[in-house]
Amino acid sequence: MAEVRSSIEGIQGFKVAGVHAGLKKDNQLDFALIVSDSPCKAAGVFTTNHVKAAPVLVDMERLKNHAQQIRAVAVNTKCANACTGQRGIDNALQMARWVAEAIDCDENEVLVMSTGVIGTQLPMDKLKHGVEIAADSLSDNWEAVARAIMTTDTRHKTASVSVTKPNGETYTIAGICKGAGMIAPNMATMLSTVVTDVALPLNVLQASLTATAQSTYNCIVIDGDMSTNDTVLLLANGASGVSLETADDLAQFQQALFDVCEKLAKDVVRDGEGVTKFITLTVQGVADAEAAHQIANTIATSPLVKTAFFGGDANWGRIVAAAGRAGIVIQPETTRLWITPGETTVQADDSLLLYEAGVPTGYSEARATEIFKNTEVSILLDCGAGDGAATIWTCDLSHDYVSINGDYRS
Amino acid sequence: MAEVRSSIEGIQGFKVAGVHAGLKKDNQLDFALIVSDSPCKAAGVFTTNHVKAAPVLVDMERLKNHAQQIRAVAVNTKCANACTGQRGIDNALQMARWVAEAIDCDENEVLVMSTGVIGTQLPMDKLKHGVEIAADSLSDNWEAVARAIMTTDTRHKTASVSVTKPNGETYTIAGICKGAGMIAPNMATMLSTVVTDVALPLNVLQASLTATAQSTYNCIVIDGDMSTNDTVLLLANGASGVSLETADDLAQFQQALFDVCEKLAKDVVRDGEGVTKFITLTVQGVADAEAAHQIANTIATSPLVKTAFFGGDANWGRIVAAAGRAGIVIQPETTRLWITPGETTVQADDSLLLYEAGVPTGYSEARATEIFKNTEVSILLDCGAGDGAATIWTCDLSHDYVSINGDYRS
Repeated sequence: MAEVRSSIEGIQGFKVAGVHAGLKKDNQLDFALIVSDSPCKAAGVFTTNHVKAAPVLVDMERLKNHAQQIRAVAVNTKCANACTGQRGIDNALQMARWVAEAIDCDENEVLVMSTGVIGTQLPMDKLKHGVEIAADSLSDNWEAVARAIMTTDTRHKTASVSVTKPNGETYTIAGICKGAGMIAPNMATMLSTVVTDVALPLNVLQASLTATAQSTYNCIVIDGDMSTNDTVLLLANGASGVSLETADDLAQFQQALFDVCEKLAKDVVRDGEGVTKFITLTVQGVADAEAAHQIANTIATSPLVKTAFFGGDANWGRIVAAAGRAGIVIQPETTRLWITPGETTVQADDSLLLYEAGVPTGYSEARATEIFKNTEVSILLDCGAGDGAATIWTCDLSHDYVSINGDYRS
Repeated sequence: MAEVRSSIEGIQGFKVAGVHAGLKKDNQLDFALIVSDSPCKAAGVFTTNHVKAAPVLVDMERLKNHAQQIRAVAVNTKCANACTGQRGIDNALQMARWVAEAIDCDENEVLVMSTGVIGTQLPMDKLKHGVEIAADSLSDNWEAVARAIMTTDTRHKTASVSVTKPNGETYTIAGICKGAGMIAPNMATMLSTVVTDVALPLNVLQASLTATAQSTYNCIVIDGDMSTNDTVLLLANGASGVSLETADDLAQFQQALFDVCEKLAKDVVRDGEGVTKFITLTVQGVADAEAAHQIANTIATSPLVKTAFFGGDANWGRIVAAAGRAGIVIQPETTRLWITPGETTVQADDSLLLYEAGVPTGYSEARATEIFKNTEVSILLDCGAGDGAATIWTCDLSHDYVSINGDYRS
């Protein structure tokens, strides 16, 4: 497979800008604009929260009717435009309208995203200014775009991959992403925009994104909360002149899209609030993938499990107990639990078996503690009764998480 | 209604002991024995975790076949006897056998409970010693029993109420309880034993306990984890000579049982790990009570909501966002959110409306902050679309919770 880069290179037919519109202080970048030279096909995956932010409602509606022809995505930080009523909808539409005027397209061809404080209205004068300076400074500076969508993220998140088809043609997929978990006081959102210069049918584009989001962004757990603004967009403009034709072409695209999104998703966990440990948690040996995911999610959201991770404690008892309350029938007698240093989804030579046949093994506590001294640890829970499996990437629950989220909104 | 006492008084026909068997250090009480002079009818409610501790399995089996004739309950701390395999079952049975020998009854007439570390076997020599000295020191000292079942609890929890029937007859209900949440490193369990000296049919006893546990112990949330050992037992020995005959008698009993268990359940939350705020959370205006409970539970287990409570932040955005992801359809437009100082389930004169019609009200932040300075705060979320309602008692997520649960097992 082609290797995923941490930077964005090689993508054709997109111009971007990350600017300081005045929403944040101290000249920090706070407004991002992604523009395609030609109309894109566009797919989206949105929060399933019943309380949806205005930009989510606007984009969902727009993708219903105009997904064949999207030209731009605009993103602001500092204000989530959530719980803002009809005025919030009007403001999101106006934000899109200004972008359309600035780049000369129909307003229906613009998608919008917001992240930040819930319950305050967008500062429209600043946004108007942001649109103007962004449209005037379009370039290939994707890093600025990735920086401009950050909230409590400490690092920008970009990824790209160039794919060479069997016939020698090459195209590129590139993505940016910002923080998961609902970020510090009233801050919201996992936002990601992925673009590609390959051409493919709209229904394939949407199916690819839905499947990929399910196995990447939906497999990360910071705190188990789901925001009002979560949005992942995928835009394809075909500017490379390459199109996907055979089933092999599609499979190759699907894998490359997965690789880009997986990298971005893991970056989000590693940069999660107060995170000190990156955990790769795999559950297997249950009826189906959905059941495996449910068990993994219950473990990954357990405060007791997460605080044990923080304490560097190989606390198999809490993991097994969390698995037991996930609502899926498991048999303690057939269940086994391993820990492994680093990132793996399978049993390895340096894996340590902690629990088997309903009881702890006579494992070495010293070795278990040594494994948990690593910043990356993998956990494999095999319930021994089926072929279903799922992997979740998660993290610990630390003092810093409590501090970051316990501070009063400021 | 009769008033619930914090102490245990007036209960007839039970003798108890809380002793130091040697499981804990420094002469701390660590073994409890509750013995009825005559056979009791017994009901139980147990953890629904698929990983069940040995004493849970033993008691469930015993209540299937011998619920008409139970004489004693024995409880040890420091070792949960969970994830201990067949040997754990054998040890739980032996523990009951020793009690039966000491008080001269059939071994099937004894129930057992354990709490403490998961995955270690019971220290049988110490337990045997504990049974002997407990059987030799039976008295009315319920406080010692309540102390002897504590793990990381900082206070013992007892409650009793004496009920006078319309015909003038009097009987008593008394209960003890220990900590909820899965307690510090690998510690497990919410345990409660409630006894009464009234006589009533077994099926009524079980139905009363099931309904009461549902509306009391199942309505408290510390961290959302569910242990391998959670057990609530209700024993009725009829020693008062009073029996329940009319529907009014039963209703009166049901209310008194609820009052005792509600007091114990709230005591558990107030004494939860690292708790600094006691929150009464009521959700109403949804289709049914189950949906209301699901929304309330989602809010009460949200780390973002709980850290905001810790920070004293009236963060309505996180509460509304958590409600929106609970899996129940809610309309932001018809939803309203109030906060009130103290403990209430309804809107009061000093309630502050934070959110209405999809947007925040123009409430005073100073007033909201003032309300959240109280150690007891009530939250009322009305979704405006049905008669279903539920109340949950919960708490904040503090630095101390992380410290207590992040420390290595010791």
